[in-house]
Amino acid sequence: MFRNLRSLLALMGVVLLACQSGGALAAKLPASPTYRVVFAVTENDPHVWAEVFGNFRNIQRALGPENVAIEMVVYGDAIAMLRDDSLVPNKVEEAMEEGVKIVACENTMKAQNLTRDTMLPNIDYVEAGIVELIKLQAAGWAYVRP
Amino acid sequence: MFRNLRSLLALMGVVLLACQSGGALAAKLPASPTYRVVFAVTENDPHVWAEVFGNFRNIQRALGPENVAIEMVVYGDAIAMLRDDSLVPNKVEEAMEEGVKIVACENTMKAQNLTRDTMLPNIDYVEAGIVELIKLQAAGWAYVRP
Amino acid sequence: MFRNLRSLLALMGVVLLACQSGGALAAKLPASPTYRVVFAVTENDPHVWAEVFGNFRNIQRALGPENVAIEMVVYGDAIAMLRDDSLVPNKVEEAMEEGVKIVACENTMKAQNLTRDTMLPNIDYVEAGIVELIKLQAAGWAYVRP
Repeated sequence: MFRNLRSLLALMGVVLLACQSGGALAAKLPASPTYRVVFAVTENDPHVWAEVFGNFRNIQRALGPENVAIEMVVYGDAIAMLRDDSLVPNKVEEAMEEGVKIVACENTMKAQNLTRDTMLPNIDYVEAGIVELIKLQAAGWAYVRP
Repeated sequence: MFRNLRSLLALMGVVLLACQSGGALAAKLPASPTYRVVFAVTENDPHVWAEVFGNFRNIQRALGPENVAIEMVVYGDAIAMLRDDSLVPNKVEEAMEEGVKIVACENTMKAQNLTRDTMLPNIDYVEAGIVELIKLQAAGWAYVRP
Repeated sequence: MFRNLRSLLALMGVVLLACQSGGALAAKLPASPTYRVVFAVTENDPHVWAEVFGNFRNIQRALGPENVAIEMVVYGDAIAMLRDDSLVPNKVEEAMEEGVKIVACENTMKAQNLTRDTMLPNIDYVEAGIVELIKLQAAGWAYVRP
């Protein structure tokens, strides 16, 4: 019995680690949304970023936050948006609080010698942003290129 | 019998109102197209617009106008294309005559203090252009970002 | 029996011609990929092109070349990439060797008075690049606009 409890605790530890590596915010996406949309942001242009954050609000207002999953994949020159010296840290934080999943491309980070400790807190990561775009569309997500 | 006729006329009135609010041009989309494509135009760049209008012709020539539904969603800085001082009013008119549905984003209009009476005639409207893009893709439309 | 053999040879000839007109490289696409993605390249911007060629490598590394079909449709101002005076002939050649299908838009070529003998060797052609994008998305391909 004691042996089983130890096994259970070990299992819980593994689960906990898995959740941490995936990011706590991913779980904020609505459980069974009618609509799913991924934004592909590649430009280092705060004007474009402002439009995208405005899009998030308009989408959630029109469809209801519980009915739409929104993910933003940030790669290429746009990665500056998610560095800890970002021009829009508050916008990023607010979007995540509203249930938008924000994902940085680790291939881009490697190319620019960026590590996770130089990035904004609580964001999610994927190995290749471009692959995320392909996988989500294959799973039925709409794609928006701002 | 007279009563039934009045009911019929009332119903016809409702249908007529519904058609008007949807815009007369929406009905020009082909009834059962094999292909459906939505263009998302966001830039205030007549060079880009010219390419898009050329795309419409090429698509209809290649597939046959009856086999493809084309919709253009205009939002963000591109809204200038649909104002009554547009640089390309004839192109917009011609596209609609060829069966292309042209839609202005009312969120963008509000942000720029534009009202419907300052826009080109006969265009269609949606509350949020970005939501239209999501809904059409969810319904199987192809997406093109010029 | 001899008659049947002649019929068979004639049929093989037809099949061979059909394969040639489709381009030898098309056959390099994986036979039954899990994922399929089309890149729509319209800009005459070698910086954008370099990112796209980098995307191809990242996609094949992440998913395995046999699991993903990649096609690049080049039209509009981007057609300069595929002319015989291209700035990136080696990149184009390498991508095709890695199984990426590279397609030039003949409508664009006509508009710029380009003929096939002024283009890079071994690329594929479609009448209208924009129609290719619509058809591939209708067939379930993901779309990426760099």
